[in-house]
Amino acid sequence: MKVKRIILSVIVGLLIGTTELFANEITETLELHSQALDMIWLVLAASLVFFMQAGFAMMETGLTRAKNANNIIMKNLMDFSAGALAYWAVGWAIMYGASASGIIGTDQFFLKATDNTVFRDWMFQVVFAATAATIVSGAMAERTKFSSYLVYSIFVSALIYPISGHWIWNSDGWLTGIGFYDFAGSTVVHSVGGWIALAGAILLGARRGKYFEINGKKETRAIPGHNMPLAALGVFILWFGWYGFNAGSTLSGTDPGIGAIAVTTTLAASAGAVMSMVISWIWFKKPDPSMSLNGALAGLVAITAGCAVVTPTGSILIGLIAGILVVISVEVIDKVFHVDDPVGAVSVHGVCGAWGTLAVGFFANTGNIKGLFYGGGFSQLGIQAIGIFSIFVWAFGGGMLLFFIIKKTIGLRVTEKEELQGLDIGEHGSEAYAGFQIFTTQ
Amino acid sequence: MKVKRIILSVIVGLLIGTTELFANEITETLELHSQALDMIWLVLAASLVFFMQAGFAMMETGLTRAKNANNIIMKNLMDFSAGALAYWAVGWAIMYGASASGIIGTDQFFLKATDNTVFRDWMFQVVFAATAATIVSGAMAERTKFSSYLVYSIFVSALIYPISGHWIWNSDGWLTGIGFYDFAGSTVVHSVGGWIALAGAILLGARRGKYFEINGKKETRAIPGHNMPLAALGVFILWFGWYGFNAGSTLSGTDPGIGAIAVTTTLAASAGAVMSMVISWIWFKKPDPSMSLNGALAGLVAITAGCAVVTPTGSILIGLIAGILVVISVEVIDKVFHVDDPVGAVSVHGVCGAWGTLAVGFFANTGNIKGLFYGGGFSQLGIQAIGIFSIFVWAFGGGMLLFFIIKKTIGLRVTEKEELQGLDIGEHGSEAYAGFQIFTTQ
Amino acid sequence: MKVKRIILSVIVGLLIGTTELFANEITETLELHSQALDMIWLVLAASLVFFMQAGFAMMETGLTRAKNANNIIMKNLMDFSAGALAYWAVGWAIMYGASASGIIGTDQFFLKATDNTVFRDWMFQVVFAATAATIVSGAMAERTKFSSYLVYSIFVSALIYPISGHWIWNSDGWLTGIGFYDFAGSTVVHSVGGWIALAGAILLGARRGKYFEINGKKETRAIPGHNMPLAALGVFILWFGWYGFNAGSTLSGTDPGIGAIAVTTTLAASAGAVMSMVISWIWFKKPDPSMSLNGALAGLVAITAGCAVVTPTGSILIGLIAGILVVISVEVIDKVFHVDDPVGAVSVHGVCGAWGTLAVGFFANTGNIKGLFYGGGFSQLGIQAIGIFSIFVWAFGGGMLLFFIIKKTIGLRVTEKEELQGLDIGEHGSEAYAGFQIFTTQ
Repeated sequence: MKVKRIILSVIVGLLIGTTELFANEITETLELHSQALDMIWLVLAASLVFFMQAGFAMMETGLTRAKNANNIIMKNLMDFSAGALAYWAVGWAIMYGASASGIIGTDQFFLKATDNTVFRDWMFQVVFAATAATIVSGAMAERTKFSSYLVYSIFVSALIYPISGHWIWNSDGWLTGIGFYDFAGSTVVHSVGGWIALAGAILLGARRGKYFEINGKKETRAIPGHNMPLAALGVFILWFGWYGFNAGSTLSGTDPGIGAIAVTTTLAASAGAVMSMVISWIWFKKPDPSMSLNGALAGLVAITAGCAVVTPTGSILIGLIAGILVVISVEVIDKVFHVDDPVGAVSVHGVCGAWGTLAVGFFANTGNIKGLFYGGGFSQLGIQAIGIFSIFVWAFGGGMLLFFIIKKTIGLRVTEKEELQGLDIGEHGSEAYAGFQIFTTQ
Repeated sequence: MKVKRIILSVIVGLLIGTTELFANEITETLELHSQALDMIWLVLAASLVFFMQAGFAMMETGLTRAKNANNIIMKNLMDFSAGALAYWAVGWAIMYGASASGIIGTDQFFLKATDNTVFRDWMFQVVFAATAATIVSGAMAERTKFSSYLVYSIFVSALIYPISGHWIWNSDGWLTGIGFYDFAGSTVVHSVGGWIALAGAILLGARRGKYFEINGKKETRAIPGHNMPLAALGVFILWFGWYGFNAGSTLSGTDPGIGAIAVTTTLAASAGAVMSMVISWIWFKKPDPSMSLNGALAGLVAITAGCAVVTPTGSILIGLIAGILVVISVEVIDKVFHVDDPVGAVSVHGVCGAWGTLAVGFFANTGNIKGLFYGGGFSQLGIQAIGIFSIFVWAFGGGMLLFFIIKKTIGLRVTEKEELQGLDIGEHGSEAYAGFQIFTTQ
Repeated sequence: MKVKRIILSVIVGLLIGTTELFANEITETLELHSQALDMIWLVLAASLVFFMQAGFAMMETGLTRAKNANNIIMKNLMDFSAGALAYWAVGWAIMYGASASGIIGTDQFFLKATDNTVFRDWMFQVVFAATAATIVSGAMAERTKFSSYLVYSIFVSALIYPISGHWIWNSDGWLTGIGFYDFAGSTVVHSVGGWIALAGAILLGARRGKYFEINGKKETRAIPGHNMPLAALGVFILWFGWYGFNAGSTLSGTDPGIGAIAVTTTLAASAGAVMSMVISWIWFKKPDPSMSLNGALAGLVAITAGCAVVTPTGSILIGLIAGILVVISVEVIDKVFHVDDPVGAVSVHGVCGAWGTLAVGFFANTGNIKGLFYGGGFSQLGIQAIGIFSIFVWAFGGGMLLFFIIKKTIGLRVTEKEELQGLDIGEHGSEAYAGFQIFTTQ
């Protein structure tokens, strides 16, 4: 009996032991795979969002004049490069550091980290910070001093963007606290960029020749972009990168909603492009290329907040309305307010970002978040409105202050002579299209 | 004894219980990872295929004249945007809905889905549908009315493409049933696009000035593209996106054949480019850039059907032959048939798509599918030929009917004056290269 | 008692059996997932690196003159296409085949493989081989015969690059053996390309009109590029692709260091761009676009060797120094040595590649590899220096020999007349910008 019992005990013991060992090994491997899925997903998504810098650069260059192309390129290169260093030193800490009263982060300056998940998350966030800074560049194109642009760009990446980012995306932020929802950054990234751009465009004043008076009435002159294929390429690149922007904002490679986000993103962009084309066709008698391209971007910006919580049908409606809004906004800002925004950045990113954020309050349709149209009442809508308004005050106000200080110190605008000759020669000492016959007197 | 027995029973019981609990947890996590691998693979591959829209836009713009650049951009933007909405409403249902007799799908209109895998699959499919529509735009460039283009484009994405797609890629499709094999769409996407393009180019007629008579003999004039760097960029973007197109068509992130598909895709494209260059060097005395670029595309189109079932050596042979075929086809269509296809879309997508589909019958070398050269006899080859022929009849016939109806109703072609002046001014009221000195009288 | 014992035995037996079965299944699935993570990671990273071909093509085209754009495009298309076929036939075998004394590989010619991991690895390697070949094209732009370029290009992909690659990346290579460290190829890819480029530029001689004598003193004339937006696009594409280049070089999708690599890559590139801008601002009085773009590339090239073993702060320092070095090097090579390198390829890839490789000896900070600044003493630094020197001798010497033979046989340079008229007409019989008014007499 004793022998048998010992044998049985040994078998059971071995079984327990082996199972435990095996279980530990499995658990570790599963954990490794889970982390790997998050890692490769986020790094690839971050790479796509990085590539949006090329999209902004090409779009802005294409929609402005040939004599300023080098300047626009330099601004885009530098707002990422200087911005990334600023976000490394200060921005990340302010945005994701330990929160002081939900207002501002207070630690992790100079990315003092050794944890691989922190590196991964910083990588995904730095490309968003750079996007916010880049948006402003378009509205201030063709007349801003390069040195002033550098200063402003660093402040945006280091301070203005991270602070409002903290409010919304830091788990202890005050807007997070009241239930404000902005999945991938219609407000955090796009509206912030758009409102700072508005402040910049106002304080800079219009490009020379943009507005003129006839019989006491202020008239507007269209200044066409010099390279529409480049602008179109830019928009396609932005759209491509947006799959990283929106779907990557799951922050997890195992989120089953990734596909649905890609679908709503695609449909909203398509609806925006089609609707802007239709509206421009009705109003201007011809389907307008730059309006249609901006319509696609309008749809993309608008769906960014709600891409994870709306249905495909909802995303189409959001995109259609964005496609209308962007055309109205471009016209009103230009012809009523006479604010000169060469690429329509305020309308695309500011206005449609706000619309998309608000739209969550109408169209959200998930367990946690329900919009007005899906039985959620006015509660979420109200919260979204509070967030939109707060961020407008912060970003527009902060932008006004920042540009005002720059204007009064180092100056914001190039000389008249330099503006006429082009900023490429004046600021950078070289032309963008050597050998081509180009009319720069326009 | 009793106590010992109880203790032993408890141990064994716990062991079973824990193991079961643990097993369930593991199984769930493994399932989650498996789905996540599929999800991120397909969404990233779909993004790459989406980016091919930029490739087509740049290639077509570069290979045509500056005065029509805005029009080409608008067509590319809209065939995706309007096409995606059409595929959402109708196309997907017809292609992947429950099959009526293997001919046409009958449910899932307006993507009434809540399942994440359906969203994922729709995302991967919509970018293929858009590719088919885009192909046509190149062959009809520089003379088609924009409104007519929009109408046709929606019909292709909603009906023509999804119906033949149903035959081949729906598991109940009639061509699936007889064993027709087209892994990533040499026929489903490229030939369909190419044959519709042929119908369009025939019904449209040539661009003014393209053909002329000298002493009763019809002569051909080359109309060079206005921006070869853009065209080259387009081809590189297309090649890049093709890794998503072909390797993504595994439809699974855990398919061990993904790497082999990338290899055959790379080698076929390389062989196509080299061979087209060599042929153009021999025939035209100089290595021709646009022929070489088209050679790379020819190789890519041709390997698309068989990329998962051929060896590297097989892929090189398929690419080499495609590189020869595309040059012959471009010359014959232009100089013998006098059909004006500005970018060679019929040759690249139609002819080389058919060749690649047929090549499966020669070069396939796997357990399930064996081509003639690997001991499979003529059986697969015959089936491939039936599929190629059926799809030609459907796509070319459908295209002829569609364009004929458009021609007789809203009209297919712009006026002579508008064509000479450029479609950018006529259709869209704006130039693509403001400020540049350009000769448009060409 | 017997019955109970039997029941107990059966239970225990079943438990063991089920567990074993279940364990096998789990182990297989885990293995599948592990391989899938590696597969999709490497194929996507390879696709990104492939896309760098577009980046090189756009950058080189943009930085040279319009009359040679077609030629540059053809060179970029063909060094990949012909190079991939050469790497398939010979290069891979020499680089990764069984080692003969650590000097050269000896088997796997014509990729005679059936193993999916071999296909995957070949795919990842072929895009690196093509990068090395492409680098040379920039330094030899605007004056090299196309046929000679083809010959040289095949030799680089088939022989020169794979042999030194064997020394460093084959596990039996002699430099591997002494502990030389080059994670993603600052030396293997970039310096090799840069030193061959130097040999080529020297043996070719300068472009006509580049240098001239005034009062017996040799003066330098800047020849500006014709399309800076394209050049900028190229740099953004290269930066984008570099995330595949560096992070993909983990060769595993489950490496937890992927995120950190993306971070060091980003910061070094940013620091390089900012520093080159600052230096050019100080020296030339204006922030120079092409210097700043090259600064970003300099940072990227320099971080490539050490991206996996340095801290974020280390990466910034490496980038800053690269940003200074590249400006000095461009000036010295041009104005002191009077070697004409139209795009700065020798400085960016050769000099900064060497710097980045050496920097590992200063800044490495991991368990296995410690640089001088992190308590590692001079040992790693010395090994890095040996590697840098050996590769310089091999690549520069091999390049000199190869180009010397080509020069003495088929000739290296186009005629004076062709150079003045542009290589597009002379070599390829077509212009790149038909319809544009361009001054080619420059």
